[in-house]
Amino acid sequence: MQYGWLDRSLLAAIRKMAAPVPIRVEIGPRSPESQPSRDALPLVRLKDTRALFALVRNPGINFGELYSRRELEVEGDLVRLLESLYRVPQGAVARMASRWSGWLQSNSLRGSRKNIHHHYDISNDFYKMWLDSQLVYTCAYFPSENASLEEAQRAKLDLVCRKLGLRPGETVVEAGCGWGALALHMAKHYGVRVKAFNISHEQITFARERAQREGLSSQVEFIEDDYRNISGSFDAFMSVGMLEHVGRSHYREFARVIRRVIGERGRGLLHFIGKNRAAPLSAWIRKRIFPGGYTPALREVMAMLEPHNFSVLDVENLRAHYAKTCEHWLDRFERCYDQVVDRFDTTFARMWRLYLAGSAAAFRAGTLQLFQVVFAGRACQSLPWNREHLYQKSGEPGKQNIEQDVEWTPAMS
Amino acid sequence: MQYGWLDRSLLAAIRKMAAPVPIRVEIGPRSPESQPSRDALPLVRLKDTRALFALVRNPGINFGELYSRRELEVEGDLVRLLESLYRVPQGAVARMASRWSGWLQSNSLRGSRKNIHHHYDISNDFYKMWLDSQLVYTCAYFPSENASLEEAQRAKLDLVCRKLGLRPGETVVEAGCGWGALALHMAKHYGVRVKAFNISHEQITFARERAQREGLSSQVEFIEDDYRNISGSFDAFMSVGMLEHVGRSHYREFARVIRRVIGERGRGLLHFIGKNRAAPLSAWIRKRIFPGGYTPALREVMAMLEPHNFSVLDVENLRAHYAKTCEHWLDRFERCYDQVVDRFDTTFARMWRLYLAGSAAAFRAGTLQLFQVVFAGRACQSLPWNREHLYQKSGEPGKQNIEQDVEWTPAMS
Repeated sequence: MQYGWLDRSLLAAIRKMAAPVPIRVEIGPRSPESQPSRDALPLVRLKDTRALFALVRNPGINFGELYSRRELEVEGDLVRLLESLYRVPQGAVARMASRWSGWLQSNSLRGSRKNIHHHYDISNDFYKMWLDSQLVYTCAYFPSENASLEEAQRAKLDLVCRKLGLRPGETVVEAGCGWGALALHMAKHYGVRVKAFNISHEQITFARERAQREGLSSQVEFIEDDYRNISGSFDAFMSVGMLEHVGRSHYREFARVIRRVIGERGRGLLHFIGKNRAAPLSAWIRKRIFPGGYTPALREVMAMLEPHNFSVLDVENLRAHYAKTCEHWLDRFERCYDQVVDRFDTTFARMWRLYLAGSAAAFRAGTLQLFQVVFAGRACQSLPWNREHLYQKSGEPGKQNIEQDVEWTPAMS
Repeated sequence: MQYGWLDRSLLAAIRKMAAPVPIRVEIGPRSPESQPSRDALPLVRLKDTRALFALVRNPGINFGELYSRRELEVEGDLVRLLESLYRVPQGAVARMASRWSGWLQSNSLRGSRKNIHHHYDISNDFYKMWLDSQLVYTCAYFPSENASLEEAQRAKLDLVCRKLGLRPGETVVEAGCGWGALALHMAKHYGVRVKAFNISHEQITFARERAQREGLSSQVEFIEDDYRNISGSFDAFMSVGMLEHVGRSHYREFARVIRRVIGERGRGLLHFIGKNRAAPLSAWIRKRIFPGGYTPALREVMAMLEPHNFSVLDVENLRAHYAKTCEHWLDRFERCYDQVVDRFDTTFARMWRLYLAGSAAAFRAGTLQLFQVVFAGRACQSLPWNREHLYQKSGEPGKQNIEQDVEWTPAMS
């Protein structure tokens, strides 16, 4: 196919942005003589010059917009293409993502409700199509690389309980509880009492019904309210996959809540998507997927905990596990793709496919990280001697860490 | 004993500073009728009103000064007393330590040499009296709480090698190698080649002789030079107990050195004393023990790594292990106390006793923390799937992690 000078200039601009990734770009419908890529390079096909122009003007937003509207197609492995683009140091993707600062979606009490509703109240049925049976929508922990998603999610629930060293009779507050799998796991396998907060109406309703069904309603209370309204005092604070929604400008407030509820004697765990370097989340992701989302650098989370004299005890980076989790999700999503199209529409389905593929790519490339941070108040009396108990294979969850626990300080207080 | 109004006012001031710790303070020599403390509270005995006045004026410095000169005695458990004072939230000790900002000992190339000479060139024989047989002068890792100091130091050397995932044939640069135990351990048990830097002449001389004796000179090169002069490129960067001497104002320089030598593909480990909150080291410790010393908050170390796009993979807090290490050291020190007095003098011996006791107390109380931070460059290709291999008991060091290692990224690069 012959291109005019405008097309040629725009194509050159795209290639320059993606450099050194040797990207193949074509315009217009696949012609009968166009060959499948022999060098296995993915090919990006744009609908027309207007689409190409939009991509050059603002790739950070418009790659996603064009892809969703079928004005951009990727022939070849979508995850692989995105991963290679993410790997470009200070490449176009990174530059564009940070240049386009976007609407600042407010995470005020009211703004949060709106932002969370946007993503989590799509419908429980949608998430049931491609999440695991317990609806755990956060990074799994694969004990071995070929563990199933179900096993890996169960292993994750158990890992965070072990990391917090939960013991029967203790009280735990969970900020952002999703469909309730972790809260119920803590109650059932670790014998703790849980208050679990969430502002997604659909999720809370589902979680309450499950608690009822499993006879755990007296141990677990699901509360449809904002983390800022958490009150009372607890032995431990747990938050898995929620900090991403808090927003940088609310970190001090978030930390004050933690401090208020666990005091100086409690302990806490934060599990969240982060970055090596502070930077805004991809503009398209913020526009279409997570309004108000922010994935912090570890430094920012340390700065959040520091004023309260919390001791950071353990940080683990599980980004390889999140890449694998996203691959599982994407795989399941592809299998129900036609149903998603039927129930929603093609634009919605392609938007979600791109989001899942892009997430897998970002965790593979290291554009995103997954951190678990364990911390304790300065007067916390009971902390494990080392981390060995996290890796003991006893089969039975919840039994491992109790004997291992150690009074650090037979001291004064 | 009857005190005048001045003594009484000063005693009241001291008690107020220590509150809520119910401290007992007396002035003058122990009188025949003075009873040993029945409530097991330690008693602080000051030589005279002048000593008491000095303590009130500047406890952060003068507790140590008076103790060293025998103008202040502690009857009862010294570690316990210091620990209880450290536990006072925002107490006198903390306030005084930060109020007195002290001489800023420069860690320039020349300043560092002087500062390091002050502490480490006291004489190898002195350290041989009370360190373990390998002269490891950093936090040990006690596999169980009643492991010996020798076992625990060996376990620590092994732990940091496993954390870095060292493999035969790799190259490692060590910044601040002490008497060389870790460099030799890496070479002997992990088959790597090591360049180990240190600016303490006595230590380097000792390390070279040991390498010679053990036939490891071809694998380990001990270099008497500053970390800023490290050149070449390496698979891994190791630094155990040295960041404390770098000084906050040199962190950016330090990080640039790391980045220069491991690039984007390498990995690194920093093991250092830190704090929950950024604050200067105790004034007395800086004056008498570690001129130029600074123990950072974790946030400050994260901020150091962030500009270079390093991924933090693992942080572990081993402060309970450092408390125990210091208790072992103090115990050994007490057993050779008379020899230390003979060889140096009483002031020196008491100064060191206070430093070791104070360190044990600070780690117990959580005034100090011990962090091990593992990180990797963004293009690092081989990282372990999880941390299980750190806790496999194979008896044989160095064999565990190789099969466990995993290519995260079969990808593009």
